[in-house]
Amino acid sequence: MNWKFSERAENAKTSEIRELLKISGAPGWISLAGGYPDPALIPCEQLAEIAKEVVVNQGRKSLQYGATEGVLPLRETLLRIEAEGNANNLELDNVIVTTGSQQGLDLLAKIFLNPGDKIIVEAPSYLGALQAFSFYGAKFITVPLDENGIKTDLLRKKLKRNRKVKFIYLVPTFHNPAGGTLSLERRKETLELSQEFEIPVIEDDPYSKIRFEGNNLPSLLSIAGTEQVIKLGTFSKIISGGFRLGWMVGAKELIKKAVLAKQSSDLCSPALTQYLADEFIKKGLMEDYLKVVKREYRKRRDTMIQALEKHCSKRAKWTKPEGGLFVWVETPGIDTDKLFEKAKEKKVAYVPGSAFYPYREDRCHMRLNFSLPSCYEVEEGISRLGELLSVA
Amino acid sequence: MNWKFSERAENAKTSEIRELLKISGAPGWISLAGGYPDPALIPCEQLAEIAKEVVVNQGRKSLQYGATEGVLPLRETLLRIEAEGNANNLELDNVIVTTGSQQGLDLLAKIFLNPGDKIIVEAPSYLGALQAFSFYGAKFITVPLDENGIKTDLLRKKLKRNRKVKFIYLVPTFHNPAGGTLSLERRKETLELSQEFEIPVIEDDPYSKIRFEGNNLPSLLSIAGTEQVIKLGTFSKIISGGFRLGWMVGAKELIKKAVLAKQSSDLCSPALTQYLADEFIKKGLMEDYLKVVKREYRKRRDTMIQALEKHCSKRAKWTKPEGGLFVWVETPGIDTDKLFEKAKEKKVAYVPGSAFYPYREDRCHMRLNFSLPSCYEVEEGISRLGELLSVA
Repeated sequence: MNWKFSERAENAKTSEIRELLKISGAPGWISLAGGYPDPALIPCEQLAEIAKEVVVNQGRKSLQYGATEGVLPLRETLLRIEAEGNANNLELDNVIVTTGSQQGLDLLAKIFLNPGDKIIVEAPSYLGALQAFSFYGAKFITVPLDENGIKTDLLRKKLKRNRKVKFIYLVPTFHNPAGGTLSLERRKETLELSQEFEIPVIEDDPYSKIRFEGNNLPSLLSIAGTEQVIKLGTFSKIISGGFRLGWMVGAKELIKKAVLAKQSSDLCSPALTQYLADEFIKKGLMEDYLKVVKREYRKRRDTMIQALEKHCSKRAKWTKPEGGLFVWVETPGIDTDKLFEKAKEKKVAYVPGSAFYPYREDRCHMRLNFSLPSCYEVEEGISRLGELLSVA
Repeated sequence: MNWKFSERAENAKTSEIRELLKISGAPGWISLAGGYPDPALIPCEQLAEIAKEVVVNQGRKSLQYGATEGVLPLRETLLRIEAEGNANNLELDNVIVTTGSQQGLDLLAKIFLNPGDKIIVEAPSYLGALQAFSFYGAKFITVPLDENGIKTDLLRKKLKRNRKVKFIYLVPTFHNPAGGTLSLERRKETLELSQEFEIPVIEDDPYSKIRFEGNNLPSLLSIAGTEQVIKLGTFSKIISGGFRLGWMVGAKELIKKAVLAKQSSDLCSPALTQYLADEFIKKGLMEDYLKVVKREYRKRRDTMIQALEKHCSKRAKWTKPEGGLFVWVETPGIDTDKLFEKAKEKKVAYVPGSAFYPYREDRCHMRLNFSLPSCYEVEEGISRLGELLSVA
């Protein structure tokens, strides 16, 4: 058959990161390239008991198709979680459960984007979002960020120059890949701009509960509400990536569209994992798990920062994130795409920074992950990187 | 905020069936409108044990992100299942696990359809497919079917008249909603036409394992292979709808595109439910479950057919399916959309046939489900329908 694919499918390219993650799983490699939580920290035995309980107690419900919006007890729990984060006045119709927050991104692209529509993203930005938006023909307008998040003065300029922007997409807290957090002042400025130009903000928030230092900042949602902000959450980093569960909070009118889009995407997310997540939270296990995660990730981050100071300080600078999963390393004058060829010889993997720019316009950064590798692997990996950088 | 949605989202409408299913869940109602399997037949206790086992034994793997293509043991199991159905010579790269077969439909739309592209569907056709394809701007060309499936003489005519058709979408076995099965002769004719006009066939096959009468027919995939056929399967009817697991078999080139599309849709399907499904099958429980399902559904179908003969024979005709979940009732001269207003008074729900036509061009059919209601409910529901029809 001579397959006649859609334009979007013809344009889609195999992600190099996927290939990179595949090779870096081989023996002898140390991978700082992943973006995964460490499943060894999950309390498997307790979760196993809950899994059994849920199937016995919720048998028919957990094994049947559920509502597209998500199962009721979990949606109620989500409202409670959001209220704890000071996003108040939300009702059930403001929330939909998604098959991971990746589906949230896909649904937002589906309901907002006509081919060629302009959107604003940070530079760098989350790769999965760039992929989801690309699939629907988005045209990216990028705004640089620093350790305090998106540069609001530049955001204003771009908004002035581009009147038909569909939305502003941000990862305000513990940015992926850049590690930084949008400051309170810039949060307010961003929301003022959103209001002034009537452009909604998507607040992608996978990491805010993994803060191991400093003070919590209010979410954009809690400041401006659903009339301006659409917030994406996920259980992937705070319970399990294997559940494939996230959620979206937004205006009722918008959630209605998301429900329609989701219905044609996968009808509903698995009822079984929804009940599991809900029980895990209700038994207080998520809070316990988060304590373990924060203690452990902090240790690994400290190890990574110390190793960077020891092995890489002559050729690189880096962020020191107060939470999340990533350190963002700048390597002035060194092309990290090219360097990766040499990294293969040393069997150490990172993600070249260019992957996080829609037009690959930056070549002197790399993203390092500290949540999955052990402290030993972090130290050894950075030592190998140091050797690479010293001769680059 | 003045939300500016995409054209596809602006055009999407709330499914009336959703509303209908909501009201028909109220006390006193008898619903023959659903399309769900009966979860009471699932061996919950055994499944609960497996759930516990999987989390303990596969802990880290089952709770982590998995490969976009699906977890390896399940993909191997799927190849074995397909080989049992005589789809041979398949390799791992011919199969991808999907979040229900609804996602398979969405991914196919994503990788094949530019807005305005023509596709051929049966009239009537599966509602979820019509929704998924609509979302990507499909233009539907319909070909009528009878109890032996799509009318191949008319298919030829439509193919001759429309040269740029992207694919032919069929539910060949125990059609939803029409109940019938594509005969062997027409299977061969359909595939000859597919070859002659170089148009791939999507074989959506949720029901073939629920045959309680007659002989199995070869799947289109087993006759013509992946160069012509893309096959969708699902665990929703043969294990549990709450797992949200299906699969797609196709040419490697096509599966590669589906993997890319899925990556941006939801990264991967839940590893947990994939391991669960795999263990359920490996322990032989799926085969046991299918025996129970077939025995029970046959009884309910027989009850439905007898009740139709008793209460409705003066004003209606119907199919007698050899498997699956549905009976398709023709009501000459009676508008089933309008009749539904009266059905509300009697508290009996069916799905009006117009829902299964892309342009709602038929008004004298209804779909009845016999898998979820008990025999008592089937008898009582049809009796209420009979009263309605007698005064229509």
